[in-house]
Amino acid sequence: MSNSGRIMVVGLGPGDPAYMTYRAREALMSSDVIVGYKTYIDLVREIVPGKPLVSSGMRREVDRAREALGLAGEGKAVSIISSGDPGVYGMAGLVLELVAAMDGDAPEVEIIPGVTAILAAAARLGAPLMHDFAVISLSDLLTPWAKIEDRLEAAARSDMVIVLYNPRSKGRPDHLEKACEIISRFRQESTPVGLVRNAMRGDEERTLCQLGQLPYEKVDMLTVVVVGNSQTRNIGDWIVTPRGYRV
Amino acid sequence: MSNSGRIMVVGLGPGDPAYMTYRAREALMSSDVIVGYKTYIDLVREIVPGKPLVSSGMRREVDRAREALGLAGEGKAVSIISSGDPGVYGMAGLVLELVAAMDGDAPEVEIIPGVTAILAAAARLGAPLMHDFAVISLSDLLTPWAKIEDRLEAAARSDMVIVLYNPRSKGRPDHLEKACEIISRFRQESTPVGLVRNAMRGDEERTLCQLGQLPYEKVDMLTVVVVGNSQTRNIGDWIVTPRGYRV
Repeated sequence: MSNSGRIMVVGLGPGDPAYMTYRAREALMSSDVIVGYKTYIDLVREIVPGKPLVSSGMRREVDRAREALGLAGEGKAVSIISSGDPGVYGMAGLVLELVAAMDGDAPEVEIIPGVTAILAAAARLGAPLMHDFAVISLSDLLTPWAKIEDRLEAAARSDMVIVLYNPRSKGRPDHLEKACEIISRFRQESTPVGLVRNAMRGDEERTLCQLGQLPYEKVDMLTVVVVGNSQTRNIGDWIVTPRGYRV
Repeated sequence: MSNSGRIMVVGLGPGDPAYMTYRAREALMSSDVIVGYKTYIDLVREIVPGKPLVSSGMRREVDRAREALGLAGEGKAVSIISSGDPGVYGMAGLVLELVAAMDGDAPEVEIIPGVTAILAAAARLGAPLMHDFAVISLSDLLTPWAKIEDRLEAAARSDMVIVLYNPRSKGRPDHLEKACEIISRFRQESTPVGLVRNAMRGDEERTLCQLGQLPYEKVDMLTVVVVGNSQTRNIGDWIVTPRGYRV
């Protein structure tokens, strides 16, 4: 009999517990301990009162995953949490890499998907993702900027809707502006753009604008930016990329 | 006082009700009537026993949306359902287009996101979407094939992970093979590929393979195909695209 425990990598959804799945809640309830980034631990505190919680700071992803694996090694059922979906710029990959590198008994791993910020933001904007789209992070912490530029150009040239993650931070105040310059080579200034900050959290902010007049100062790390393609248009207070039905 | 009712465009998640959000269930419970494609109506029948349901066949999207609007026009609270997320190749855009075209009182519309098949498939495969990715449908019913080829080439050339929707049907048995030929110009034959059919439904099937040896006959309309990028690798029985942490 192995003593290797279990790891559940749990997507919490965008923030409001109403957008969490039943399976995610069940995983949290059935865990012996929950590990996560401080902000997300605060989100689950009320959902599982009294449950042992282990929180850590930003950019401590590797330590956090190791801690979860250590607890699983003691035979515990451990949830390691991400906001949104753990498989989209979340913790799932790192946990699997570390499990694969283990000597001896590895814990059982389950990835529990969730509603990502992409989908939450899109729902708040209307229906911008009804057609092919690319998801690109503007963070160059782990990716060379030249590769990010390549992807922006490719997505813009081939008329995909573009979702930008990590669009702007204090450390990289001009990445979003550079990205929009690249996209603007292939798209009109009037292309609809939607900004959603903290989608489906208490302090949600939603801004509709155009590619040529983007209020850069409103954008931070917690904002998802959706840039329409050539077909995307404003319909009332919504942004919609028509799929092409005759209506 | 308007008599224009409400429309909730509800994402059911991948199929197993455990992966539905609380908000989606609440929307179904609070509706006077639920409208949807036959297969999805069958999914909700047990969740809301006794609730009036209106089902219709495939490719009847416009009729279905009009029916939902008609019912809302009678002052009813109407849910119109999609599997996965209604904003990703679902019903959200069409509903908003039709509402915008209405004379007179338009119903209030709420888009309720859900876990798409993309995220469900990724969770079953491991963590293939930890880095930038493109989502491309191979259906040319509403999109010229040349545009689809452009997008495939752009995504492959810029080393994005690629998620293929509607990869293969009786009407287009060779689209997936053509798509893989295009991607193979930029990626090695050994690139990890994951196929997930009916992710998180009773008859889920999961296949790991390589770009150069894809079992095309296993793929149908209900399959999501995930093609790794240059960094994606097999880790044990999983597919992972490392984000670039030092582990």
